[in-house]
Parts: sequence; structure tokens; C-alpha cells
Amino acid sequence: MSWETYLDRNQQRFVQELLDFVRIPSVSAKPENIPDVQRAAEWVAARLTAAGAERAEVLPTAGHPVVCAEWLHAGADKPTLLIYGHFDVQPAEPFDLWTTPPFEPEIRDGRVWGRGASDDKGGMLIPILAFEAMLRANGRLPVNVKFFFEGQEEIGSPDLPPFVADHADRLQADMIFSADGLQWAPGQPQIVEALKGLVSLEIVVSGPRSDQHSGMVGGGIANPALALAHILGGLRNADGLITVEGFYDDVIPLSDEVRAAIDRVPFPDADLLAETGASATWGEPGYTTKERIFARPTLDINGLTSGWQGAGTKTVLPAVASAKITCRLVAAQSPEAIFGAIRAHVAKHCPPGVTAEVRRNPGRADPFLVPAGHNATAVASQILQEVYGRAPYSTRVGGSIPVMTTLLETLGVHAVMFGFSHGDENLHAPNEFFRLDAFRLGQTAYGRLFERLGA
Amino acid sequence: MSWETYLDRNQQRFVQELLDFVRIPSVSAKPENIPDVQRAAEWVAARLTAAGAERAEVLPTAGHPVVCAEWLHAGADKPTLLIYGHFDVQPAEPFDLWTTPPFEPEIRDGRVWGRGASDDKGGMLIPILAFEAMLRANGRLPVNVKFFFEGQEEIGSPDLPPFVADHADRLQADMIFSADGLQWAPGQPQIVEALKGLVSLEIVVSGPRSDQHSGMVGGGIANPALALAHILGGLRNADGLITVEGFYDDVIPLSDEVRAAIDRVPFPDADLLAETGASATWGEPGYTTKERIFARPTLDINGLTSGWQGAGTKTVLPAVASAKITCRLVAAQSPEAIFGAIRAHVAKHCPPGVTAEVRRNPGRADPFLVPAGHNATAVASQILQEVYGRAPYSTRVGGSIPVMTTLLETLGVHAVMFGFSHGDENLHAPNEFFRLDAFRLGQTAYGRLFERLGA
Repeated sequence: MSWETYLDRNQQRFVQELLDFVRIPSVSAKPENIPDVQRAAEWVAARLTAAGAERAEVLPTAGHPVVCAEWLHAGADKPTLLIYGHFDVQPAEPFDLWTTPPFEPEIRDGRVWGRGASDDKGGMLIPILAFEAMLRANGRLPVNVKFFFEGQEEIGSPDLPPFVADHADRLQADMIFSADGLQWAPGQPQIVEALKGLVSLEIVVSGPRSDQHSGMVGGGIANPALALAHILGGLRNADGLITVEGFYDDVIPLSDEVRAAIDRVPFPDADLLAETGASATWGEPGYTTKERIFARPTLDINGLTSGWQGAGTKTVLPAVASAKITCRLVAAQSPEAIFGAIRAHVAKHCPPGVTAEVRRNPGRADPFLVPAGHNATAVASQILQEVYGRAPYSTRVGGSIPVMTTLLETLGVHAVMFGFSHGDENLHAPNEFFRLDAFRLGQTAYGRLFERLGA
Repeated sequence: MSWETYLDRNQQRFVQELLDFVRIPSVSAKPENIPDVQRAAEWVAARLTAAGAERAEVLPTAGHPVVCAEWLHAGADKPTLLIYGHFDVQPAEPFDLWTTPPFEPEIRDGRVWGRGASDDKGGMLIPILAFEAMLRANGRLPVNVKFFFEGQEEIGSPDLPPFVADHADRLQADMIFSADGLQWAPGQPQIVEALKGLVSLEIVVSGPRSDQHSGMVGGGIANPALALAHILGGLRNADGLITVEGFYDDVIPLSDEVRAAIDRVPFPDADLLAETGASATWGEPGYTTKERIFARPTLDINGLTSGWQGAGTKTVLPAVASAKITCRLVAAQSPEAIFGAIRAHVAKHCPPGVTAEVRRNPGRADPFLVPAGHNATAVASQILQEVYGRAPYSTRVGGSIPVMTTLLETLGVHAVMFGFSHGDENLHAPNEFFRLDAFRLGQTAYGRLFERLGA
């Protein structure tokens, strides 16, 4: 039986396993789900052992755990691949916008619906299944394989840098492939040349020591929510240019070549509007929408909190108002420099009568840019062309995978994105789903990758 | 036994009754507490009957009910007093800031601690108790008394205008006294010349149809929370002047006399800062802090809501961002005109790529200004001087009691504030309390008011 036949014959079971995996609410951002992230790690380790991997272990970090496993019997003359993915998921709120509950996955229309189905539980199962199929079909693999799955990607992998440094020997590889990644569209592959970096922070504006009666003190003292709005309103100008001093200083300007490559990717604004429901595109002047999303730094408010949020009216002057902010960074911006620039901006523009604190949230990612002509990229590109029957686009992605730069810095290896999710699958949003045909196609792609690199 | 002796002998029981009353979580803003507001109404009606009032009834409105009762046997030659108060309370969140639970009242340091103890359950019990004492002690009152207690003051009394119109005969009186009101400080009474009006609204900014992955679309489409910040930041300038076009148009300028009267009230900025914990006073330029709080219109954000509010980071570009806003108005601003001005301002300044809706929240109050030389005010002033041993200050109050203007318009009678709470009692905030000595003193004041007006 060929490994392809094995995949076909076991696909039903694999899909059921994916459903089991999605049922674990491994939300890394929420303290109450810490045991669930641990449970997901144990599920992954057990699944790797069942697939035939060796040394499958749940390894502790200062936060959520890591799972490592390996199969190193291809021979010293064969390359060693490190395969990366993550078993933690984004929070599922707001629950009431889900058609079916986020952690009670369902199959509808050839898709698995549930939180994490696409990002990244479906994705990270794919190489494990291809590995199992090849080991069962052939008794061996033509390459050495290491698996490295983490449980804190969605909170910025705060504990991964020391973990990777401490386990550099165990993780060392010739090539790194990330099972967390996107294809351009069903039927259209892509090679991702760049990922954005990330810095996460919170601006907390404080005024009176507790919420006050807006009639008793309103007009007398500053309102922290109005002060926060003033600060936030000043982070960008009316045209969409970020006005934080120094924000763009370290940005490598887009070359004409890169702009032309981005221009070749067919992604009309109308598609973005249709996918998101937004009424218009908008952002930094002087760049196309694609350029802004792919290759320009951004600043987004992720959340606002202050005062009364229940129904109706509560006439308080709130004690505190806060905003969660993430910036997506491009080469060669650094999270530390951008955090410093925002902190300085807030200190300079904080109105009188309140205090504003800028707190760094855990997690960071440096921007990630694959060098032109990278060897693993070339092989991945070839295989994508074969399995899709189409040449991949060269793209850049606004998302961040913090551990990619950690691995680069510690192991000296550029990872290649080799994942089979799609941008329309409601990643980080209600009604996340994963396409079952991409799930199957990805398994073939990983099988061929093993064959090609072992040839 | 004199009515004063009756009050002394029954004070223990009265305090226990206040605790019972506070135990009912009659939060008018929260749909889940609708039955509790009803329960509070029934408690009040029963307490009025027990005190000797007649026709004590819970009367329906389109929202929370009203309680009316009366005692009209003083004779046609005696004046009829309408006594107002409210049995609904503000929400108690955030619960974790309370030393003892808001609806499990406790006596500590001569104070009753609990939500509504001061605003207005303690306050509205006072005239009922004085009424009971005089009726038991003398078998009669020297004046006719009507009681009118509502259950929706804290949400702006949206259903009171039609109720008052429909029950004008039942409510008609020669004088109106509000048991919801403040004295200047323990030991220092005040006569309130003006209350501010109120308009309540919500600005809701919408972008994509659901929360989006900030890496996938960030930079491509507008962020509703940033757009909201831009709109809110533009409602006032950096100096604190409200920049909504037309906002100040209908404001009656403060005369030199009024400014001098305000200046005579000893309320140093340092006291406001000590009471609130704010680091500095701040607001509309050209006016003192007292003038701004007492007699100038204000705009406050009461709450902000958008996106992820849990712990840590969630990298979303939120679908919606909203702000709850109340403006406190002074004569002769109208809630409708101010709502219209803000709506026009938002429409004009909404940035591209999002839609902004301005929704009116239920409840409104016109500003309330007592005419100089008002007769009931003169009597109230005299009695305050007697029971406190000090002449009352003439003040204006930033708070709003919407039904005061409703009563004025329908019954043609200006109400007099005759309540015994104080501004430092954490009204609308955690750890609300009511002073038991003011509870007792207020009962004497109401007893004397009945005597004086019946003489």
C-alpha cells in the first residue's frame, strides 16, 4: 500500500481526530484555559507517538508547554526537517456570533467548523498524518524529521525564546517548515516571502480613584475616557498616517521590484471588502491596499474598555480607561523601538488631570523576511506547483509567527511557510472553519516534501 | 409622646428597615433586575400603608412602576405637599471594589454601607418616617401630604412624563419637596438653586461585519476603535472646550451675581481632588472649577466598549466600537438640541471606511432653575438654618433629577430639594454609604417642615 492509499483509507479517522482536537478549548490567552492547553499538549504528544514518532514529550516552559518528537533513522546523509505548528487557539468570544458552538466542531459543506480548526489544529495535524502514512506504508522515511509544536503562539510566544535557546540541540535542523501558514486561495498556492513582526501594548489612563458621579464632578476633573480618546485619536492623522514620532524610521522602503511583485498578486480591493464587509478600504496614504496589508507597518486598537458597558445609561465619570493595541511591524523595525516610540508619544500627548501608563503586553515578534533564492523555499514552491497545478504567487503576509524569528536567531535557519489554511477561514473570528480538501491536499504535499528532500 | 420622641424610640427599627430596603437590588438599568425594582415598589407601598398613608398603590408605567400614596385630612385650607423620591438604584459594578457586598448592607462607623443607601433609599424613607411619627404622636398632620416615589430615576425617568400627565390630578399639590437631594456637608446645609439637565446617547462605529484578524486585514481597512477615538477626541479641544458646533448656543451666561454667589461657597479645588483622588482639576477654560461643576454644561464619556477586553492580547481588528456619553445641561439648553448637535458633529467628522451611528439612550432631563424668591424655598431655608444651626449656602448642582422639570411643566410647581445625602457618600460608585445622623436629622427637618407649613 502506498502512503497515498494509506492517507485515503484513513481520512475518515483523521477527520474525526481533528474534531477531537478542536473540542479541547486550548485558549492560550485565558488563565482559566491553562489546563486545556496542557490537555491539548498531551493529546498532541500521544498522537505523535501513535503516528510512530519517538521521544514525543510535553516539555514545560514558564508558561504554556511545548511538544517535541522526532524520527531520526533516515541516516546522517539525509537532511533533518523541523516541522513547526501550534496547538493553542484564539479566544472564541463573542460566542453568540457562532452558528455552532466553537468547541463543539461540526462538519458542514466539506468544512470543519470550530475554533482552531484552521489556525492551527488542522494545519499542524497535516504533517503528523503524512509522517504516519509514509512510516506505515514504507516502514521508514527518506528524511529525518523533528516535530516542534507550541501552545502560546496566539499570545505571542513569550516563553519560546528561552525554550528554544535551552533546547537548541534538540531542535537543530537543516530546514524548518511551518505547518502554520496560508495558501492564497483554494486552487492557488503561494510562497510567503515575509511575515510581519508584532508588538503588543496597553494604554491605561487613570483619573479619580474610583468611578465618580458625572453630575457631582463632571466638568471639574478630567474624564479618563475622553483623555484616552484624545491620545488614541492622535496616534494617526485623518489620512491614516501613523503620527507616532519615529514610527517609520527603521522601515526598509519597498523597492520597485517588490512593489511590482505585490502588484502581480490578484487581490482587488473589492475582494477584501466582500470578505470583511467593510464599506471602503482605508489606510496609510501613498500605498495600495495590498502594499499596506502585505508590507507596511500598522497600528490597530484591538480593544477598548472603560466605565459602564451594560445596557442603558450609567452616569459615571470612569476612574480608568484602557486600550489594547498591537502594531504589525516590517523589516527592520524592532518591537522594542516601536514600544518606546509609542510610550514617548503618549507621555508627550497625555492631557492634564490624568495619568497615562503604557504597558507592554507579553509576546513579541520581529519581522521575518526570507532571503531571495532560499533553497527550501524553492523545493516548497515546486511541490506546491505540482499538487495545485499552478505556480504559487510570491506574497507577504500581515500576520506574525513570533517563533520564526526566534528559530532563525537561535538555529540560523529560515523557516518556510508550508501550511494549507486560507485567509477567508475566519481565523481569530467567529465561525472559523477549515477546508477538508485542503486538509487532504496538505497531507500529499508534506508526503512529497519528505520524498523530494530525501531523494 | 411628641413626634420627636417617637422618632427617637423607633430609630433602631427604622435603621433595620433601611437595611431591608437596601437589600433589594432594584437596579433600574439592568433588565435582569426588573423584578427587583417591582419588589422595591411593593416594599415602599407596604411601608407607606404601615406608616398610615392611604391609597398606597404600585402604579404601572411602560417601564418600572411608580408608588403613590396620600393623607389628605388636614383640611382644604391647609397646603398640600407632594414628596418625591426614588427607590431604584445605580448598578453596583465593579463589585470587587466594594468592601462589603453592595446588597448586603452593613452598619460601620455610624453609616449604612450599600448601594442606594444614600441615593435614594435612605433619603426617601426620611419623610415617610417623619410622617409616621407625627401621625402616631398627634393623630393627624397639619398639612395634606402626597407621596410620589419612582423606580426609574437612575435611567432618566423615560416613562414619567406620560405618567405625570395621566395622573396630574392625583399628583397636584401646592408645593413639591424632593427627598432626593444633597446637603453641602455634614453640619452645613444648602439650598439648591439649579439642577442640570441630561441627555444620554451612544456613538456606535461599525466597520467589518465581524471581528477580523489584525494581521490579515490591518492597514487595509479602517479600524472602528481608532475611528471612534478620532470622533471622540474631536468632541473637545485640548483646552477642554466642547467643540461640538452649537453646543453652547442656548446657555444663559452666568451673571456677575451668580458667579459671586458661587464664589462664596467654600469648595476649594483641593477638596475636590482629595475627595476624588484626581491629580488636578481640569475643564472648560474661563471658568472656575466650581462654576464648571455647578453651572456650566459638560460632556462626559461614561463607558467605552470594543473588541477584546479579556486578559492579554487578542489580535483583532474589531467590528464595532462604542461610547456611552452623557451631557449635563444648563438653562436654557434642551436635550433634543444637544443630541442633534452631537449627531451632526459625528456625521461631519466620521472618518472614511466606517459608519457611525448616534443613538439616543432613554431618559432626558431639562435643566432646572428655581426662580429667585420662591416661597417653599424660603421655608426650607429657615428650617435648615434651625436644625443645622447654620445658614444654608446657595448652590447649584451638577446632578439631574429629570422628573423635577416634568412636574414643573405638568403641575406648574417648582420643587424644592430637601434631601439629606452628601456628595462624598460614593453615590453611583463602589462603597456607597449614608450617614445615620443625617438620617435622623432629616426626619426632624421634615417634621418641622410639616409643622411650619401647616401653621
